[in-house]
Amino acid sequence: MEVRARAPGKIILSGEHAVVHGSTAVAAAIDLHTYVSFRLHAPSDNDDGLIELELKDFGLAFSWSSQRLRELFSELGSWSPRSCSTECLKVITSLVEELSFPEAKIGLSSGVSAFLYLYTSIVGFRPGKVRVTSELPLASGLGSSASFCVSVSAALLALSGAVYSDNQQNGWLVMRENELELVNKWAFEGEKIIHGKPSGIDNTVSTFGSMIMFRLGELTRLKSSGPLRMLITNTKVGRNTKALVAGVSERAQRHPDAMAAVFTAVDSISKELSAVIESFALDDVSITAKEEKLEELMEMNQGLLQCMGVSHTSIETVLRTTLRYKLASKLTGAGGGGCVLTLLPTLLSSTIVDKVITELEVCGFQCLKAEVGGKGLEICFN
Amino acid sequence: MEVRARAPGKIILSGEHAVVHGSTAVAAAIDLHTYVSFRLHAPSDNDDGLIELELKDFGLAFSWSSQRLRELFSELGSWSPRSCSTECLKVITSLVEELSFPEAKIGLSSGVSAFLYLYTSIVGFRPGKVRVTSELPLASGLGSSASFCVSVSAALLALSGAVYSDNQQNGWLVMRENELELVNKWAFEGEKIIHGKPSGIDNTVSTFGSMIMFRLGELTRLKSSGPLRMLITNTKVGRNTKALVAGVSERAQRHPDAMAAVFTAVDSISKELSAVIESFALDDVSITAKEEKLEELMEMNQGLLQCMGVSHTSIETVLRTTLRYKLASKLTGAGGGGCVLTLLPTLLSSTIVDKVITELEVCGFQCLKAEVGGKGLEICFN
Repeated sequence: MEVRARAPGKIILSGEHAVVHGSTAVAAAIDLHTYVSFRLHAPSDNDDGLIELELKDFGLAFSWSSQRLRELFSELGSWSPRSCSTECLKVITSLVEELSFPEAKIGLSSGVSAFLYLYTSIVGFRPGKVRVTSELPLASGLGSSASFCVSVSAALLALSGAVYSDNQQNGWLVMRENELELVNKWAFEGEKIIHGKPSGIDNTVSTFGSMIMFRLGELTRLKSSGPLRMLITNTKVGRNTKALVAGVSERAQRHPDAMAAVFTAVDSISKELSAVIESFALDDVSITAKEEKLEELMEMNQGLLQCMGVSHTSIETVLRTTLRYKLASKLTGAGGGGCVLTLLPTLLSSTIVDKVITELEVCGFQCLKAEVGGKGLEICFN
Repeated sequence: MEVRARAPGKIILSGEHAVVHGSTAVAAAIDLHTYVSFRLHAPSDNDDGLIELELKDFGLAFSWSSQRLRELFSELGSWSPRSCSTECLKVITSLVEELSFPEAKIGLSSGVSAFLYLYTSIVGFRPGKVRVTSELPLASGLGSSASFCVSVSAALLALSGAVYSDNQQNGWLVMRENELELVNKWAFEGEKIIHGKPSGIDNTVSTFGSMIMFRLGELTRLKSSGPLRMLITNTKVGRNTKALVAGVSERAQRHPDAMAAVFTAVDSISKELSAVIESFALDDVSITAKEEKLEELMEMNQGLLQCMGVSHTSIETVLRTTLRYKLASKLTGAGGGGCVLTLLPTLLSSTIVDKVITELEVCGFQCLKAEVGGKGLEICFN
């Protein structure tokens, strides 16, 4: 038997950086997923008793003898999420150090560590195989690692019987609320291994979908039924998120009054934005007016991000290009490169969208179209 | 005898638009001038008794019979500034309507109206000739009309004996404080004819030079002894200032909380900026650190202006170009085109400056280098 899970990536609609200084931020799921399939090996299937991980997009496959893992981790199996101990992390790190990653894909090693932790914790040492593919570009601020952790956790928990077992139904299924919460907690443990101190926003959005408003560590799930469409332009310019966050803090120290006002402005924008999105309804007659409001809020937020000093020439290039088509854009996430959002209004012709994309691709950027605020984690048993 | 006067243009260093909503703004003089020369005709010089105005840059010259002007304006001559009455303005308007302006230079007509008012008020109907040239591009937000009104008023008042008559000294002279105040008041009357409801900032900066902080109609003169250099890029994109100001107000109505915070941020930036500039000293060892602070404040202000929605693709093009050279820029004035300021740090090599200018000129922009915060109105009697 095989289980499949898919979990979406996320974008920050508003409030990045300012959220560190107490402002409200809003994140939303996008319909770009990480797909995970998992099957346990039947004893006859695999004499070696291997635990296997295949990262198809990268042409990488790893396997470990389940025997050896059992010896290294005395007894790890557990269906209730708990943090990876320092000792356990040491063992995992040494296991991953044995593997050989191509230079350019060294960033994947922390994901493999998270996998090893989740697998051995949830499934124990029963041989099995996990295959992963993703529509999300890596390390671009679109929550690829969280959607990896969520979908891996869900698949492992599902086949281990810890969650949803109504496998009579066909097609993609949304889990029950308490099951989603369990998956989310495990995914957060995985995120900790990858990121150190994640905010928990990425895995929560990936698990529950829709939108989340967050402020001072408190997450509020929002409803959205809107057909919000965004163009996500990946500038492919690598960023140092820590340095960008530190840069904003330093600027706030140098100009405390001005920056406090800037963070207040962002807070208002996030609140307005979530109110507008929550008011969206399918076949909304006032959809264009609402989209214009969103565009204005995005433009305002982008100005404030530039005021914080986290823009980048590559981001400005995207802004200029989309502005020529009267489309509103803002950076999403850390800035300094990374991804830029452009709202695609409902009434915008696909010819224009194609033109914009062509222009952006000529600049060397990667363009992804996405529905925003849609479903979260889903699983499938057939 | 001939008198010459020169009065500088101005830039808004920070706070444009936000000033309308109660924030502090800072304007400064730039060493780009309008030059005016004035001589009274000796009776033998000119039998016709003409009052003449030559706008050399535009290849335009106008003249009026002093006899006719005397008949039209019963008795206008006055050395104390007072507003142009509705009746008087009617007469002036009809006189100007008689003139023929080339289509592209129709904007000059209000300047000619101001000239007629100032001349007949200050000099009366004595025949004479005023010649004007300017280094300032017209209608680009650099205060060309104010520097015209200031230099014309000064020349007229000087030769009429109302102000400074120490004509023994050679070269350019700064007038006494009370004389400058008189000139400034007349210039403001001229500005009213050109602009309707001017703020009085442009003529005050042009008259007194240096810098002026203004908030809620209150002007505070600042000292600056710094060698601040700016590149002023004229995008040559015409703007509708009224529409831009109205656009910001509408945005403030739609998003009162966010925009109030934005205006507060601008207020802080203007205050910080003026404090930094006032702390400048010649041969300042910490000049680079201060310039970096100014650059940061300019970048922040620009972000906030983008948040207000008054940027423009042409402005973005300038920003992107200068950003590539790690130079900080912000729009100055109304935005939506117009001019962009770029700080030229003291230690920046002229090779780089030339490169930036070349790149900007290739885009079709006009580049002007200017010292900021220097002298105001000066006159010369030789």
